[in-house]
Amino acid sequence: MEVIRQIAAAKKLLREESSKGRSIAFVPTMGALHPGHRRLIEVAREKADLVVLSIFVNPTQFNDPEDLQNYPRDEEADLKMAEEAGVDMAFVPTVEEMYPPGFLTSANVARLSSKLEGASRPGHFRGVCTVVLKLLHIIRPDYMVLGLKDAQQFTILQHLLDDLCIDTELTGVPTVRERDGLAWSSRNVLLTKKQRRQALSMYRALKRTHFLVKKQGILHTGELLQAVRSVIQTSGAELDYAEIVSRVTLEPLDHVERGGTYVLLAVRVGKVRLIDNTRI
Amino acid sequence: MEVIRQIAAAKKLLREESSKGRSIAFVPTMGALHPGHRRLIEVAREKADLVVLSIFVNPTQFNDPEDLQNYPRDEEADLKMAEEAGVDMAFVPTVEEMYPPGFLTSANVARLSSKLEGASRPGHFRGVCTVVLKLLHIIRPDYMVLGLKDAQQFTILQHLLDDLCIDTELTGVPTVRERDGLAWSSRNVLLTKKQRRQALSMYRALKRTHFLVKKQGILHTGELLQAVRSVIQTSGAELDYAEIVSRVTLEPLDHVERGGTYVLLAVRVGKVRLIDNTRI
Repeated sequence: MEVIRQIAAAKKLLREESSKGRSIAFVPTMGALHPGHRRLIEVAREKADLVVLSIFVNPTQFNDPEDLQNYPRDEEADLKMAEEAGVDMAFVPTVEEMYPPGFLTSANVARLSSKLEGASRPGHFRGVCTVVLKLLHIIRPDYMVLGLKDAQQFTILQHLLDDLCIDTELTGVPTVRERDGLAWSSRNVLLTKKQRRQALSMYRALKRTHFLVKKQGILHTGELLQAVRSVIQTSGAELDYAEIVSRVTLEPLDHVERGGTYVLLAVRVGKVRLIDNTRI
Repeated sequence: MEVIRQIAAAKKLLREESSKGRSIAFVPTMGALHPGHRRLIEVAREKADLVVLSIFVNPTQFNDPEDLQNYPRDEEADLKMAEEAGVDMAFVPTVEEMYPPGFLTSANVARLSSKLEGASRPGHFRGVCTVVLKLLHIIRPDYMVLGLKDAQQFTILQHLLDDLCIDTELTGVPTVRERDGLAWSSRNVLLTKKQRRQALSMYRALKRTHFLVKKQGILHTGELLQAVRSVIQTSGAELDYAEIVSRVTLEPLDHVERGGTYVLLAVRVGKVRLIDNTRI
């Protein structure tokens, strides 16, 4: 596995590979790799000849400096896991390499970016769109593989790619969960045992909505959200938001539209903020 | 010359050409082609195997609906001139093709975009950056050729390309002038004889600054701007702005820095707004 830290070197290597007709699949990450990332790499392997993984804790998508500072980092372990999982090139730029002095550009997807995570984390998706756009210009991948745990991010980036006619096909990979059902997240390592129990209420709440829809035929989202809120609040976790929205527009729905609906949750346990979702 | 109106068809044709190793030079325009554009096409011809010209009156860069409505359009004449000048492909999309329902994405270069033209035309450069970024993804050119009459636009787009690591080399072409010295602009056809005389005060003012700097050694920008304002105001044209700025930061300078300075002017004559500049 090549480890590349400079943009120019990454471009040179990847353009050579492309000119030989080799296809590229790209997995953007912020490091602290876990089995969810490993699954993304597996999917990328199936898609293309060459798998590029980026590791970059992007400061512009953190609205909270403390969250940025506490974000887990372990480059050595990440590179080991990436190599074992079959990554061909790890792109690991510094902040200065990605945002040199005088950097002024941003990309944004209006409306979709200001709700849900965007409402709780102002500027978050502007940071995500900008860094992903830059990475796409550097890597020029045929495929980009993203986790569906970040459902809103997936919808926004699909919109960005479509609006700007970018030649990269997006693939969303279903959330990988730990044994107890907690969605794999780099932030899980920050949880105490008690906080972890509280965080698990998200998973229980999502299972509960499936039960209510499928076994009891409840489609009214007000009723479903009441059940979700009750499960979360009983656990002691602090609910940030619970919404049931269209997968395409991310607008709240009055009634579940089967196949096209997300239940989206965000909670705080102590200083850690976690998200989870399910598709109905 | 191929005339292509669909994004998918343009991509297909151009990717085939690229895969054969042919280089592409791109000239983005809003049509109403004049000798200034012809010069851009000539420069593009020298750069690459294939010249692509886009003709698209981009609504999102007009802050004034009346300006958009009055903007001159003559597709037939444009295509004739493009073919004669040696364009290989004219890309002429509709507004619906470029901005389908649900389009939400924008790109922006902060700071540089909010001053000068950006202050007079809020949102103008956001519109320019967004449409150029989209066109670059469609065309994937090796070179993009732009006129330096739009000096601020050139600086902003160079910044956009650098910040986002886009593999396109930018070339700026010096302003082409009509016989009397008026910079070629698609809007010149909208001028009455009297307005044209007033508009010419920009050219006289720019020549005056060169005279004052070169023959009289005046470098203090306050003194130079006073002379510029006097020439414009005497003509009866309404001065929008006159500024002497750094070519890189577009920040006002106290003293001319030879080689790195722009004198930038914008005036209104009747309902027509025109810009011009010179580099010192």
